[in-house]
Amino acid sequence: MFKSAASVERLANQLARLPGIGRKSASRLTFHILKMSKDEANDIAEAIKEVKEKVGFCTTCYNISESDPCFICSDDRRNKEIICVVEDSSDAAAMDRAEGFDGMFHVLGGCLSPLDGIGPDDLKIKELMTRLKDDIEEVIIATNPDVEGEATAVYLSKLIKPMNIKVTRIARGLPVGSDLEYADSATLSRALEGRQEF
Amino acid sequence: MFKSAASVERLANQLARLPGIGRKSASRLTFHILKMSKDEANDIAEAIKEVKEKVGFCTTCYNISESDPCFICSDDRRNKEIICVVEDSSDAAAMDRAEGFDGMFHVLGGCLSPLDGIGPDDLKIKELMTRLKDDIEEVIIATNPDVEGEATAVYLSKLIKPMNIKVTRIARGLPVGSDLEYADSATLSRALEGRQEF
Repeated sequence: MFKSAASVERLANQLARLPGIGRKSASRLTFHILKMSKDEANDIAEAIKEVKEKVGFCTTCYNISESDPCFICSDDRRNKEIICVVEDSSDAAAMDRAEGFDGMFHVLGGCLSPLDGIGPDDLKIKELMTRLKDDIEEVIIATNPDVEGEATAVYLSKLIKPMNIKVTRIARGLPVGSDLEYADSATLSRALEGRQEF
Repeated sequence: MFKSAASVERLANQLARLPGIGRKSASRLTFHILKMSKDEANDIAEAIKEVKEKVGFCTTCYNISESDPCFICSDDRRNKEIICVVEDSSDAAAMDRAEGFDGMFHVLGGCLSPLDGIGPDDLKIKELMTRLKDDIEEVIIATNPDVEGEATAVYLSKLIKPMNIKVTRIARGLPVGSDLEYADSATLSRALEGRQEF
């Protein structure tokens, strides 16, 4: 990108490795960083280093956390009888932002994907089963509504049901604020299937 | 974004300050960095720090550079009689990638913009004039083809012409590979004005 400064080229290459950032964006970001004050740029660099140093996993729910047990697992005001199972920490963060859930989380660390060689042993499923030995009332499966996420949900429900624990799946349907006209037929089918009485 | 880990929140905030990266992208990048190995993440952090430590400005052309004079100014194979004037280092990099130019650069550090309070003294115009005292054959003005860039080009041409130096402006017209049907009328006017005989 810029022959005369190897460090500029190096930064652009590093940024281009991030998801959603192509060569052009990486180049633009690099020139932006060059224009920043040294302190501002160092703040970004330090934030990256800090996050890798401080953040680990909660050994209860396997969510990312600076402490163990994490903020959520150690919060006594939350409902410890409901566990929401998600694929990733980012999904847990999204669920936590939504109103209406004050239970615990369990982060699988992905979803079943035989094509990518990811089986039950690669996910925190055994650890979930151990948690279910405690007094759990309901497991809400909030894996993604795609093929792998659905397969993972079905797999988990078959494991958990025999333990006499209520297992639910988050609803699939039309996103709030969307337009029926532009919805895909799979989503519409799910919205029909999941219809509820007034 | 993620209440339980302050450092995660901090990194997302830092990334969201970069151009073109909103809250959602920043959050996605943060979770990506969390998934990277520590070494990979440190490589990015170090690249940011390195670029701020090593890269300065060439005191001849004011382009970003790790050395002074820069790679281009100290390259004897380049044509020292032609100077291409650009707004920013990123523009110089773009011009340098294009075929057909092997002259020198002069980076103004912006363009005239009275509304933003940027006048001639805020740009490296005096420094350009000093360079023109040497044996210069042609000055190619390659400021952006927008209002401020055009104003800057006209301003510079009026300063330089009396010095008996050839002043040219890069052509404005249809981008290669584009479609005439979708071109805006200002671009089409410029393309007509700049037409050349076969």
